[in-house]
Amino acid sequence: MKPLPLLDAILSPADVRKLAPAELARLAEEMRHRIKEVVSEHGGHLASNLGTIELTIALHRVFDFTSDRVLWDVGHQAYPHKLLTGRARDFATNRQQGGISGFPDPKESPFDIAKVGHSSTSISTGVGVAEGYRRLGHRRHTLVVVGDGALTGGMAFEGLINAGQLKSDLIVVLNDNGNFIDPPTGSLHTHLDRIRTGELFGHLRHRFMQALKRLPKGHDLERMAEHLEIAAHKLITPGYIFEDLGFSYFGPVDGHDLQATEDLLRRVSRLKGPILVHAITKKGGGWKPSAADPLKYHGPRGFDLDTGEFRPLPKKGRTYSQVFADSVIELAHEDTRVVAITAAMPSGTGLRQFGQVFPDRMYDVGICEQHSFAFAQGLAASGLQPILAHYSTFAQRGYDQLFQELVLQRDLGVIVTLDRAGLVGEDGETHQGLYDIAWARCLPGLVLMAPKDGVELRAMLRWAHEVRQRPGRAPAYLVRYPRDEVPELGWGLAEPTPVALGKAEVIRRGDGELMIWAYGQPVKTAWDALAELGEAARGVTLVNARFAKPFDDALLAELAAAGHRTVLTLEDHTLPGGFGAALAEAAADRGLALRIVRAGVRDELVPHATREQQLAEHGLDRAGVVKRLRTLLGLTGAVPIPFVRAG
Amino acid sequence: MKPLPLLDAILSPADVRKLAPAELARLAEEMRHRIKEVVSEHGGHLASNLGTIELTIALHRVFDFTSDRVLWDVGHQAYPHKLLTGRARDFATNRQQGGISGFPDPKESPFDIAKVGHSSTSISTGVGVAEGYRRLGHRRHTLVVVGDGALTGGMAFEGLINAGQLKSDLIVVLNDNGNFIDPPTGSLHTHLDRIRTGELFGHLRHRFMQALKRLPKGHDLERMAEHLEIAAHKLITPGYIFEDLGFSYFGPVDGHDLQATEDLLRRVSRLKGPILVHAITKKGGGWKPSAADPLKYHGPRGFDLDTGEFRPLPKKGRTYSQVFADSVIELAHEDTRVVAITAAMPSGTGLRQFGQVFPDRMYDVGICEQHSFAFAQGLAASGLQPILAHYSTFAQRGYDQLFQELVLQRDLGVIVTLDRAGLVGEDGETHQGLYDIAWARCLPGLVLMAPKDGVELRAMLRWAHEVRQRPGRAPAYLVRYPRDEVPELGWGLAEPTPVALGKAEVIRRGDGELMIWAYGQPVKTAWDALAELGEAARGVTLVNARFAKPFDDALLAELAAAGHRTVLTLEDHTLPGGFGAALAEAAADRGLALRIVRAGVRDELVPHATREQQLAEHGLDRAGVVKRLRTLLGLTGAVPIPFVRAG
Repeated sequence: MKPLPLLDAILSPADVRKLAPAELARLAEEMRHRIKEVVSEHGGHLASNLGTIELTIALHRVFDFTSDRVLWDVGHQAYPHKLLTGRARDFATNRQQGGISGFPDPKESPFDIAKVGHSSTSISTGVGVAEGYRRLGHRRHTLVVVGDGALTGGMAFEGLINAGQLKSDLIVVLNDNGNFIDPPTGSLHTHLDRIRTGELFGHLRHRFMQALKRLPKGHDLERMAEHLEIAAHKLITPGYIFEDLGFSYFGPVDGHDLQATEDLLRRVSRLKGPILVHAITKKGGGWKPSAADPLKYHGPRGFDLDTGEFRPLPKKGRTYSQVFADSVIELAHEDTRVVAITAAMPSGTGLRQFGQVFPDRMYDVGICEQHSFAFAQGLAASGLQPILAHYSTFAQRGYDQLFQELVLQRDLGVIVTLDRAGLVGEDGETHQGLYDIAWARCLPGLVLMAPKDGVELRAMLRWAHEVRQRPGRAPAYLVRYPRDEVPELGWGLAEPTPVALGKAEVIRRGDGELMIWAYGQPVKTAWDALAELGEAARGVTLVNARFAKPFDDALLAELAAAGHRTVLTLEDHTLPGGFGAALAEAAADRGLALRIVRAGVRDELVPHATREQQLAEHGLDRAGVVKRLRTLLGLTGAVPIPFVRAG
Repeated sequence: MKPLPLLDAILSPADVRKLAPAELARLAEEMRHRIKEVVSEHGGHLASNLGTIELTIALHRVFDFTSDRVLWDVGHQAYPHKLLTGRARDFATNRQQGGISGFPDPKESPFDIAKVGHSSTSISTGVGVAEGYRRLGHRRHTLVVVGDGALTGGMAFEGLINAGQLKSDLIVVLNDNGNFIDPPTGSLHTHLDRIRTGELFGHLRHRFMQALKRLPKGHDLERMAEHLEIAAHKLITPGYIFEDLGFSYFGPVDGHDLQATEDLLRRVSRLKGPILVHAITKKGGGWKPSAADPLKYHGPRGFDLDTGEFRPLPKKGRTYSQVFADSVIELAHEDTRVVAITAAMPSGTGLRQFGQVFPDRMYDVGICEQHSFAFAQGLAASGLQPILAHYSTFAQRGYDQLFQELVLQRDLGVIVTLDRAGLVGEDGETHQGLYDIAWARCLPGLVLMAPKDGVELRAMLRWAHEVRQRPGRAPAYLVRYPRDEVPELGWGLAEPTPVALGKAEVIRRGDGELMIWAYGQPVKTAWDALAELGEAARGVTLVNARFAKPFDDALLAELAAAGHRTVLTLEDHTLPGGFGAALAEAAADRGLALRIVRAGVRDELVPHATREQQLAEHGLDRAGVVKRLRTLLGLTGAVPIPFVRAG
């Protein structure tokens, strides 16, 4: 990491305030360099952070966040804030195991108020913070920095509305780059566009007020003028949509113009009540390659610092997301009723590729997971065959809609994929997809699946699409798969078993007492572990569970009757309420006296690291599974967990 | 049920269209009577339904819903729609077991498009339906009726935004009664108020346009006039907030003026694109008592048809909600940092009472469950001690916020109550609180509790408030309790055991092989069942689990070691991932060879009936528990579920 004289001397925001105005541009340059350098090595969010550098400097110059508070919506634009709050030197460890997090984190710094990674929540938190300080008599400023993309999430409106109601002393800085994670969508953007292009407004304001004064007097017209004056205020204020919610609107200001931004923030810092500061920024701003293609540089890894050219990464296999994209394209070729929906994640889910083949059959609804489920409901009810692609963690935002809009309708047959299910690596705690089996399995009628590899992902999607044409279809078919490459071919059964509702697949049948039931990719891990143990594990049975719901309790009973006394369950999911729990329930309901050993993610938050490191931490890599198997097979000195009969 | 000549002759909406305009007022009267009569007997939603009678008649006269589609947001205003779609005679069975549902239900009628009961989702569904029909080439109108209250839910904005983006052929009828379930809240209401009181606007429109034309000409001023004209359109259109989202706004119209409403709907039926029709209605309208106090008549039961006077109900005990209210008031007296939050449910949760004692410490954030969690986070982060009261079913809407805004922050110590947890009775499928143990137990660090009675509810709240002052506090303490009366005193232990983290309470210790672990109110059911069985059940141990998380696995192991071989788990919750699952997991992890028999709600949707009927349906009433115990104790001929040892 290149030493940077100004930046490396900043140990706290107080140091930023000591700098002369002339030095600030150089500081911004140094911050830009540090962020680019670290992200080019280790990956991370780039474009969003390059866009907030000047804005962040201005914030720290005007406010004192040892007392004032700032909340970053989503949090993927907080690197500059980290650099100015004592983390410039540690920044090289960004997103690495034991290093600093890629998102704000109160554990890391008192300048971070909330752990965050999901969108559109900061205004609501800010309203609470501001209200608390008001009630407790603290004189502190509460600020929120929220992107225009995050503003499309309905919850942001809930926050704005409540701030207006409570007349909160809250400054919302709208960081408007007109281009969130993926290209802008929705009519709110039209609204913001109109503001951005409304340079005429300032000019008009003056002339309009003059014209009003020249209007003829008279009873009616006087009343009219009075109303017009109120209305005119709205008319000539570009942010009237915010004014109408009770905010005082200021802007737009060029968020890369340090002086102008600082001046405006200083001005509003003296005001009370809900304030919206509209800053126009350029995502990826200040660096030509990312400014030209902020989407490409949203979350890059391995690029040349001068040219921005991506370095060839070590040869990698295909990801589940890619297999998903290919499979959906294939289905859409065969069935014109197939349409696909994403909530602002076309690139991550693979649906961008689908949209290139079928532009008018791809819906990006913005950061609106709630809406996405109801929208899918409507499409299905009309006779289409929607496929809704989410990240597991973001699907949580639409949980109540999964319940009401899909489950309660009983038989709409919507296919929902949960990408990034399981341990997600560097994004850490906020993005872990560790809870979906638990929150989905309790809802009546859902079908929950996880493929062991890419071939099976395709087969499951095709199967779900086929059965949803038939009577008795489920409300929804949820398919979960990890942020990972699919295992290479050439393992397991020579001929895969066809997918059938609630049927598991026996990968190998042993004559011993131990069986493994694995759900999803851990099937391959177990296969490898068994291979490593070789002859010692000859008697072990390996089951590819395929379905967490309905669970194949008939096979479980059959294998128990055949002499298996112990089950090892394997899942890339938290243990409470997960796949192992489903098996334990089935065993109880069938009265099977099985000793059940559950391997999964422990019941704790899992911080950032590589996915491989996280799997190893939780004993879910090959070595971890080998270790467990050795214990269960009595190959170590250690005593296996006893199975205690009562009294 | 009084026969009503016009209404009873309406077998389908076609019959409504055959009526002469002069007959319609009488039809409205008859509908009003039928609704009042049935609700006065059996309960249900009254005020909201009285408010939509004329609007519904107008909708069915203008549109043909054998082909067109109408979606009712929340669905608590769809009785008039039910009356006009062949369900006038069956309406006497409303909300009763085997009868028609209190909410729209596609199982019941092809005129109902979606099962619904939670708020703010209909616009999104409508966008999907309209988009599907467009793509499939169906020429059908898609309509949505949404209240002003539902519009405060952020998801409604997501729907509006997407409709604007897709230019959906969607007619949104805003049923604006300025007074949703509980009194209006939020700045959106201010906006709608301004529209409602803006009778001057029509007058102004004309004069303003005239004035514009008289403005002096000139280059700058011409440009200005051009801009002003666009802006003026917005200015003089009361619904510019909707126009800005891409909707054409029409109204406001008096939604009780049948002719005017019909005329406006007919006019917009010829237009394309997203349309918003603003109808002003009076909740409880057309009947003096409910019009005067719509809140009182939101969901009444047992009143006099003439005077509206409430009939004395059979003497009832105190409800959990009442105990909650008293307990929170008590805590707030002792600790000035205690504040309470509800999302539009002050009456139902009991917080109205709290608000009467502490008006400035009660926050009603509107139908914004998502916001409520983040707001609570902010309040807690600022140093206050929030208590957030939800219905179990509505808390689902804030699931992702429970995760990010509370769980990820690790130690905010927010108390969250889940009222109506378990079977809820007449509201049916949409309102069942059957999933909260499953969706909450998977989230790291949460503490989940359920009291066996009112005394314990108070004790749990006091305990949670005490421990959250200390280091090591949980992110949140969730307390679930049913829509029921608390059991009367005088049962169980003479002296209750103090509440302690993760510790269950042994109510009685037997020397037999069978133990019961019950969670929440089922403890009392088990107690009664044991009493009924008397000597035959002498050896049975009864445990009041208290905590679903952390689960008291030490006690489980101790009781297993003491000779208990079988556990019966009892819970007012669905079986997958519920309390019994938690116990099965603990038994597996401890290696306890226990036979586990789980009693709870079967994994299926539970339709409307009384709570007592629903409990009986799922074997969770006293008789059901007695039956299970008799089987497990070998008191019947039936063979108990065997506990199969392998091979």
